[in-house]
Amino acid sequence: MSTIAVLGSGSWGTALSLVLADNQHDVKLWGRSKEQIDTINNERKNSRYLPDVSLPENIIAFSRLEEALEGVDAVLIVVPTKALRDVLKSVNDCLNQPVLIIHASKGIEPETHLRISQIIEEEILEENRSGVVALSGPSHAEEVCLRQPTTVTASSNDMPMAEKVQDLFMNRHFRVYTNPDLLGVEIGGALKNIIAIGTGLTSGLGFGDNAKAALMTRGLAEITRLGLKQGASPLTFAGLSGLGDLIVTCTSVHSRNWRAGHMLGKGKSVDEVEREMGMVVEGIRTTKAAFQLAEQLGVDMPITTELYKVLFHGKPVEEAVSELMGRVKKHEVEDLNLGDGDPLNELEP
Amino acid sequence: MSTIAVLGSGSWGTALSLVLADNQHDVKLWGRSKEQIDTINNERKNSRYLPDVSLPENIIAFSRLEEALEGVDAVLIVVPTKALRDVLKSVNDCLNQPVLIIHASKGIEPETHLRISQIIEEEILEENRSGVVALSGPSHAEEVCLRQPTTVTASSNDMPMAEKVQDLFMNRHFRVYTNPDLLGVEIGGALKNIIAIGTGLTSGLGFGDNAKAALMTRGLAEITRLGLKQGASPLTFAGLSGLGDLIVTCTSVHSRNWRAGHMLGKGKSVDEVEREMGMVVEGIRTTKAAFQLAEQLGVDMPITTELYKVLFHGKPVEEAVSELMGRVKKHEVEDLNLGDGDPLNELEP
Repeated sequence: MSTIAVLGSGSWGTALSLVLADNQHDVKLWGRSKEQIDTINNERKNSRYLPDVSLPENIIAFSRLEEALEGVDAVLIVVPTKALRDVLKSVNDCLNQPVLIIHASKGIEPETHLRISQIIEEEILEENRSGVVALSGPSHAEEVCLRQPTTVTASSNDMPMAEKVQDLFMNRHFRVYTNPDLLGVEIGGALKNIIAIGTGLTSGLGFGDNAKAALMTRGLAEITRLGLKQGASPLTFAGLSGLGDLIVTCTSVHSRNWRAGHMLGKGKSVDEVEREMGMVVEGIRTTKAAFQLAEQLGVDMPITTELYKVLFHGKPVEEAVSELMGRVKKHEVEDLNLGDGDPLNELEP
Repeated sequence: MSTIAVLGSGSWGTALSLVLADNQHDVKLWGRSKEQIDTINNERKNSRYLPDVSLPENIIAFSRLEEALEGVDAVLIVVPTKALRDVLKSVNDCLNQPVLIIHASKGIEPETHLRISQIIEEEILEENRSGVVALSGPSHAEEVCLRQPTTVTASSNDMPMAEKVQDLFMNRHFRVYTNPDLLGVEIGGALKNIIAIGTGLTSGLGFGDNAKAALMTRGLAEITRLGLKQGASPLTFAGLSGLGDLIVTCTSVHSRNWRAGHMLGKGKSVDEVEREMGMVVEGIRTTKAAFQLAEQLGVDMPITTELYKVLFHGKPVEEAVSELMGRVKKHEVEDLNLGDGDPLNELEP
């Protein structure tokens, strides 16, 4: 049995703590709010995020990071990307021997365009980490807590480390696959939030399932194009951390990115949406980062581009959607064309 | 302007008639029920399938096939695969010059394993057809009738014919792409119904979005494997007629295949389901055909196989699902492995 620190006591951090606790590991759950930490320890409940879930005794909550990190074998990071660097700097200060760093956060940093694992490698000294693994896939926290069937991917540039994470989390309800394509797993997980905002937006405008399916299909194609240009594998985008996560995020009204898009479609401004949500909407930051990255790499990402204009330059949503629908394209495979030098290119007519 | 016979006056045949009529074509809609035909002509309504839609004057309905086919430039076939050969034989008897044959049916024939276009080529003499084109994609009939944004694919081995179909149907709300991979388009459209039954079934068992996303992701992977083995392009399965149609069919409670699966999950027998539906459930026939085809070609299709056992050999649904969840697999990419000789194979670890 291992001792694992889980940093981030939102719904996903709590659900993953429960999986680890089910597997008989000792979990040290860290959160910023003293009040929340006390409720978890005293009432065995995370009332704000998962009020109906009772937490077992082998999850202990901490509000002081150095205490949470004491004597752990692995650290699981589940904080919003905005807070990531600060948390990582503090983690690095507390560590004095190499531990396994796992993350279940999704996003790309604006300006630097770095993925989560790259930010971890920048902030945590090499002597303080034995490996970096991403955990990603189609997984509502609520369903994981109900022990409903869930499948995710553990990915690392160092496959034995991914397999270690697989062993930590795998059980009868929660199946973990491994994938060596860390780049593709992180790109897919982050960029699906852009498409989730887009599908929420078309739904807010009153469009139906046909439009949603079109947007998701063409959205996955543009995510794949960006990933391949950077060296990811196309199979990853067809897998759980790509297509699977896209499906869960775009077809559920519980997704906060979908809800943000829905409000935009209903006519709210970006400021109003962010105020009303009162939570981080990762997809908004990610849209900016992906737009910049696409420009820099010369990858055609029409959905990301239109959404960027809506979010950051006040373009009316109706105009953006009609631009997307009105694009003059004749052949479907042109649209799915995966970029120069790709083996799939020969399939273009 | 063209004159087009639409054979099949269900909801999809009627919706496509409306698209053609919107584009100023003359539509001759054929159905078996004299009563329905009279209501369409007199009340401008298809009361059974689309009661809220008013049909314009340039759609005229016929119950006699020879009248419907008189003087047409193209024939659009939208009948269940079970009735297909009979209808095609009669069509062939009525034709005396080559016309364009378009189909929007989805299925694979059990025993012969033929796709719709192949059955058309068997039943309609070469001198009676100028081309065969499939029209497929994510498209609820109801939304098409509301002129909501919809995208589909026209596919043919003869691309100029697919482009002719694109010209016939394309308008501001209904966008038509072309794709030369007829095999892939027809396989994707047919086999997605298997996965729709599967997602309905897990939902009937009480499982949530995580399980649904996993099933859809791995379902598309096994459909792709079967298609590639026959020579289809992987890009097609990532496109509108593959992924797009899969999303619409698996995430909508309106899909009859999904509903059939849901009843199975709730404990009904296959006989009860078919009786209660009172409609053709294409996915049941397709499951049998796909299972046979997978056996014959040596393609691993675990979801199709388990569903086949449930539908045709009385295997308890809980047992089938637990078998699917319990499969021992370590690496995700093994699961997505697209078969020998495929360029993507190099991506396997």
